[in-house]
Amino acid sequence: MTDLPIPVDADRFLADLHALRGFGATGTGKGVCRPAYSTADLAARDWLAGRMTEAGLAVQVDPVGSVFGLAEGRSLLVGSHSDSQLEGGWLDGALGVVAGLEIARAAREAGGPPVSCVSFQDEEGRFGVTTGSAVWSGHMPLERADTLRDADGQTMAEARAGLGDRVGGFVDPARFSGFLEMHIEQGPVLDSEGGQLAVVEAIVGLRNLTLTFHGLQNHAGTTPMRLRRDAFQGLALFTSRINERFRNVVTPATVWTIGHVSVHPNAHAVVPGRVTFTLQWRDGESFRLDRMEAIARETAAEVAAELGLDLETAPLLDLPPVPMDPRLRAALETGAEAEAPGRWRNLPSGALHDATNVAALMPVAMLFVPSIGGISHDFAEDTAEADLVCGLRALARAVAALG
Amino acid sequence: MTDLPIPVDADRFLADLHALRGFGATGTGKGVCRPAYSTADLAARDWLAGRMTEAGLAVQVDPVGSVFGLAEGRSLLVGSHSDSQLEGGWLDGALGVVAGLEIARAAREAGGPPVSCVSFQDEEGRFGVTTGSAVWSGHMPLERADTLRDADGQTMAEARAGLGDRVGGFVDPARFSGFLEMHIEQGPVLDSEGGQLAVVEAIVGLRNLTLTFHGLQNHAGTTPMRLRRDAFQGLALFTSRINERFRNVVTPATVWTIGHVSVHPNAHAVVPGRVTFTLQWRDGESFRLDRMEAIARETAAEVAAELGLDLETAPLLDLPPVPMDPRLRAALETGAEAEAPGRWRNLPSGALHDATNVAALMPVAMLFVPSIGGISHDFAEDTAEADLVCGLRALARAVAALG
Repeated sequence: MTDLPIPVDADRFLADLHALRGFGATGTGKGVCRPAYSTADLAARDWLAGRMTEAGLAVQVDPVGSVFGLAEGRSLLVGSHSDSQLEGGWLDGALGVVAGLEIARAAREAGGPPVSCVSFQDEEGRFGVTTGSAVWSGHMPLERADTLRDADGQTMAEARAGLGDRVGGFVDPARFSGFLEMHIEQGPVLDSEGGQLAVVEAIVGLRNLTLTFHGLQNHAGTTPMRLRRDAFQGLALFTSRINERFRNVVTPATVWTIGHVSVHPNAHAVVPGRVTFTLQWRDGESFRLDRMEAIARETAAEVAAELGLDLETAPLLDLPPVPMDPRLRAALETGAEAEAPGRWRNLPSGALHDATNVAALMPVAMLFVPSIGGISHDFAEDTAEADLVCGLRALARAVAALG
Repeated sequence: MTDLPIPVDADRFLADLHALRGFGATGTGKGVCRPAYSTADLAARDWLAGRMTEAGLAVQVDPVGSVFGLAEGRSLLVGSHSDSQLEGGWLDGALGVVAGLEIARAAREAGGPPVSCVSFQDEEGRFGVTTGSAVWSGHMPLERADTLRDADGQTMAEARAGLGDRVGGFVDPARFSGFLEMHIEQGPVLDSEGGQLAVVEAIVGLRNLTLTFHGLQNHAGTTPMRLRRDAFQGLALFTSRINERFRNVVTPATVWTIGHVSVHPNAHAVVPGRVTFTLQWRDGESFRLDRMEAIARETAAEVAAELGLDLETAPLLDLPPVPMDPRLRAALETGAEAEAPGRWRNLPSGALHDATNVAALMPVAMLFVPSIGGISHDFAEDTAEADLVCGLRALARAVAALG
């Protein structure tokens, strides 16, 4: 393993990854419970800060609680997040953080290039969504983030108070030449194909439409079929038509989901008078998101007219796609080909990441390792250690090449 | 109106119907709140018993609280129920009870034939379903009915205690030659066609199947369409196939409903891992209910196999159809043609009624009057008074003919 320009230590990397897992370990498999600002999260961040200091990096905790380990001068930034879901896996976020630490440490030991590392706060959205990087990148003012409440009603301002005297100022983004994030895929593609690595093409855009069909609630025994205005039948017809029509527009990477369905009054013997549901779709290209939105809106209006329903549409949630920087992405591809020849591919990221926000500040790119069974946000989340090390080495090659 | 063999008094009938509406009147339109064993219900039954006594009928309240007004000797029984839904209309049940009272009273005034009347208890199912007639007919032992609980946890035994010294023994069914029940249609057919009366062909049978598709819960962004096992898509495909296949089997009177749908975890960004839903269908013919059940089970299994889902089936609810007695039905048809020439029709009853239970004891038949807008179980339930009187007169003709 000494053939690398930045000679990362795989054993030390894995030992640190397992050490981080100790903070909030649930005892169920390798699972962790380390939500943002929890005792376990703050202890993990203090431990990380200690490891950064030992590696000769200058620690700076920003007002949201994101922990930076800063090299001198202008550098690449490598990292992810160390907070977890309430029922979280040991790798989601933690992998990218410890990879950043190891590469920054190994680069410093080898006399360069300068590499900084980071663990963003609240990527998993106890308060918002990717909150730490959203505030840092200017997507959300800190004053607004402070008013966000968690499921128990606590505000982020109250949670931030727990950071105490750890807090410094915001880190100047101008000191970084780019951001690289390694992450588990959180999907089944690499695992099902036996692939080892994926270089992300784009973090896909997401649109979420909440629709309601209003029909006529009626007795399911005494109302003939021809006199019904059954809201659920509207949803069933909408679903089959959308499936047909989207097939002419999508790529194999496009996804769409009807994930939330609420039927009223939801009783065996009552013709549904109202159905509210969500259609969410994701793709790397805005024009395709537009086409799908047009089809969804037209089909919903058409179905409502055919079945005598009224259609209500809530405001659209619209997160645009974030393309990866071509130069950073090429460096990751070269690193992937060196470490996993013939066993890497390009993939869109179907999930949001801190890189989504950081892209507003600097060039970004991402590298995926496989998720066994496609499982994440679950205690059972895991990846073969050989694949974790393969990812670390490919990332180190990219960092060295980008200098 | 003196042309009838049993000279019913339309004004007295309407006056009694409005008087009964005074018990539990909500002040919202003509709506009533008179659930079984409530203060309003017991007061209404005491008032009814008083009217029966005034008419020269022998009052007997059975152990469940059903109030009988008995003529001497063997007689027809005419009636329905006087308890209501929590948000009930003024005619559901009450119409048939007061019609029975008026016909029994007018027949007695005219010197025969003997006619008895009844108001069954808890047809609306505060405790069971059509509880009073179910116990009387032997469908449910009183000991079991006593253990049923209402939505607040009170047992029927506790509620029955409120009957106090009103209670006598069960009435011997052998004293009745048949049962006639007039009721509002509770559906839109007569109202939408401008019809005045309907003679019921059968109280339809009902089957209710609760099905669950088990798929794989997954991230809606990172799981490609080809690797999904989306339980909701199973329901959508099942719904469209059932609609196609049922059309080859059904009559215009057959109904089917997917009324309850529960999606898990029911989140925008999660591919549904589980969907539980009900398919309920009703028809007057058992062979058609069988055919539909076979189609439903085969289609569910087929969809599960195609989409890689597991299918779970809960025990079937199966209430067989109850055909109306041909002789009683013919008498109602003759009466309907005399009172509403060209403005009556045959209809199945899509809803359950006390007649469903009483059919186990004696011949039964039913007559419907229109429900304005098809509305029932609602304060807005109503019927034109001319149609109420038309029904009363047709029913009186049938009773006279059956003697």
